Amino acid sequence: MKMLINAADTVVSDALEGLAQAHPGIVRVMRNPDYVVRTDAPLQQQVAIISGGGSGHEPMHIGYVGRGMLTAACPGAIFTSPTPDQILAATYASASRAGVLYIIKNYAGDRMNFEIAMETLLLEGVPVASVIVADDVANPMQDLRRGTGATIIVEKVAGAAAEMGASLEECARVARRAERQSRSIGVALSACTVPALARPSFHLGDNEIEIGIGIHGEAGRQRTTIAPVAQIVDQLCSALVDDLDLRAGDRTLALVNGLGATSPIELYIVFYEVARWCAARHIVLARSLVGNYMTSLDMAGCTITLMRLDDELLQLWDAPVCTPALRWGV
Amino acid sequence: MKMLINAADTVVSDALEGLAQAHPGIVRVMRNPDYVVRTDAPLQQQVAIISGGGSGHEPMHIGYVGRGMLTAACPGAIFTSPTPDQILAATYASASRAGVLYIIKNYAGDRMNFEIAMETLLLEGVPVASVIVADDVANPMQDLRRGTGATIIVEKVAGAAAEMGASLEECARVARRAERQSRSIGVALSACTVPALARPSFHLGDNEIEIGIGIHGEAGRQRTTIAPVAQIVDQLCSALVDDLDLRAGDRTLALVNGLGATSPIELYIVFYEVARWCAARHIVLARSLVGNYMTSLDMAGCTITLMRLDDELLQLWDAPVCTPALRWGV
Repeated sequence: MKMLINAADTVVSDALEGLAQAHPGIVRVMRNPDYVVRTDAPLQQQVAIISGGGSGHEPMHIGYVGRGMLTAACPGAIFTSPTPDQILAATYASASRAGVLYIIKNYAGDRMNFEIAMETLLLEGVPVASVIVADDVANPMQDLRRGTGATIIVEKVAGAAAEMGASLEECARVARRAERQSRSIGVALSACTVPALARPSFHLGDNEIEIGIGIHGEAGRQRTTIAPVAQIVDQLCSALVDDLDLRAGDRTLALVNGLGATSPIELYIVFYEVARWCAARHIVLARSLVGNYMTSLDMAGCTITLMRLDDELLQLWDAPVCTPALRWGV
Repeated sequence: MKMLINAADTVVSDALEGLAQAHPGIVRVMRNPDYVVRTDAPLQQQVAIISGGGSGHEPMHIGYVGRGMLTAACPGAIFTSPTPDQILAATYASASRAGVLYIIKNYAGDRMNFEIAMETLLLEGVPVASVIVADDVANPMQDLRRGTGATIIVEKVAGAAAEMGASLEECARVARRAERQSRSIGVALSACTVPALARPSFHLGDNEIEIGIGIHGEAGRQRTTIAPVAQIVDQLCSALVDDLDLRAGDRTLALVNGLGATSPIELYIVFYEVARWCAARHIVLARSLVGNYMTSLDMAGCTITLMRLDDELLQLWDAPVCTPALRWGV
């Protein structure tokens, strides 16, 4: 394994310091326990939107802290849930009386630790709500679906609502709507390498790809042979559209997300095929995002997320945002 | 070789179509000859800023077309210069009487083809100027220095000047100043794979890295063993600072650029070490950019660019920009 790191045990802390120094006007990085928070937090009368999860998926979540998106993010160790004390520290640094909304990816560890934090807050009388993101259709059992690319959309939508002064109930409502209208699925061309293990999480042959891969190197639903990207996109988009019951005339947002080691030129080719696929079915691509938004260390491959849009979700998506990784309108 | 493509001979055209469909409000993609142009071009009374070069370096240059940066970009085949007719077609679609500035990376093919286009324009009475970008310090002979990361900065600065209504002479002047104040150097952890060749351009051993690599897989100045990133950054930054004669108190812009297959978490670690290195020498990092801004297909590694800033360059850098890959202030 070759990586641009100092040592396996300083990967997360070095990257956090790098983020802090690259974006001093947007985020503040706190250490021990680690969290990233907006420089202007806590914001009076504004609901705090907080997410977190294992590191190794950058820019998720730490790159989405800033005006119009997350108030704070809690980065765990690589592929490891943040601890309850991290979550609480981030919460105390960002929550006002308007309350706090946790955006939680559907992994057992994340759910457990955010729930412990919520119980503490409820005892303290802090208004708190949560939304679970479970958008990955690779697992046929809905309760076991992992949280992946839709998390970015949910964070954007909830953050926009909070910035507009929405109540906690209202922020939770739009976040849940965004989550229910989104589906994702991924394909890996190579496994990722966890720095502390120094070897790939699994092995794919020279011509093999894995459909339905998880963002921690979890097994997918099918191992197959590399094919023209139009064929791969057909398989991925079919799974999404069936599950979401997307129909002709529906407006959608498409996120083509690189997993870390896939080049921008490839991601634009994938997007082209997604656009062609949708156009052939009269599904309207009203908004799009193409790039590395949720990685899996050095995994090669991509995920595709489709969200059904309506006027409310479109307005929240288009609202100004100023974070290290997502920025427009300001 | 595994890549998310349809076929080697459709890589560039598929990616161009993807870019066009992902950013319909910003760019228009024209085909045969291929170029990407602002949707609102030609702009009367505004100098057209045009660049181009081989494909495989996305988002450079096609992702930098838009308000406040390039008026048009000409993408050649993979690692192949754009042809004079491409350059002229882009020019006719974007140039007004205010003239046109070509931003040319210092490669023989690029220089030759842009010069042919310039000769045609001069005969036709179109005001034209050019700036050659030669920022890569890996080659000790200044005339042979390649154009790399500084190109993005030069394009941003020239585009900002044009957007503010500067004359052709003025746009060329600030572009040349930005170029002279910038230096870059790269390190590769793996070679890139040209789709049509379907094999890596060279081979690095399991623990080998190459310092001073070119963005087309050209040989570097030194092959060595992977080391903690602090050591690698020390070697790279020393070369830049010596060549640029950066001194304590100087304000700089630092660009840490991923070459395509390097994860965001690694790029933030590299940036952290750059920031620490500069801080120890009292060099002020006034602005920064961390991400995939000029790739080399699926090469693993990064380039570092440092630019000495003054009030004029800072103002042009901070000016609003709205392109697929760089966006702020709008």
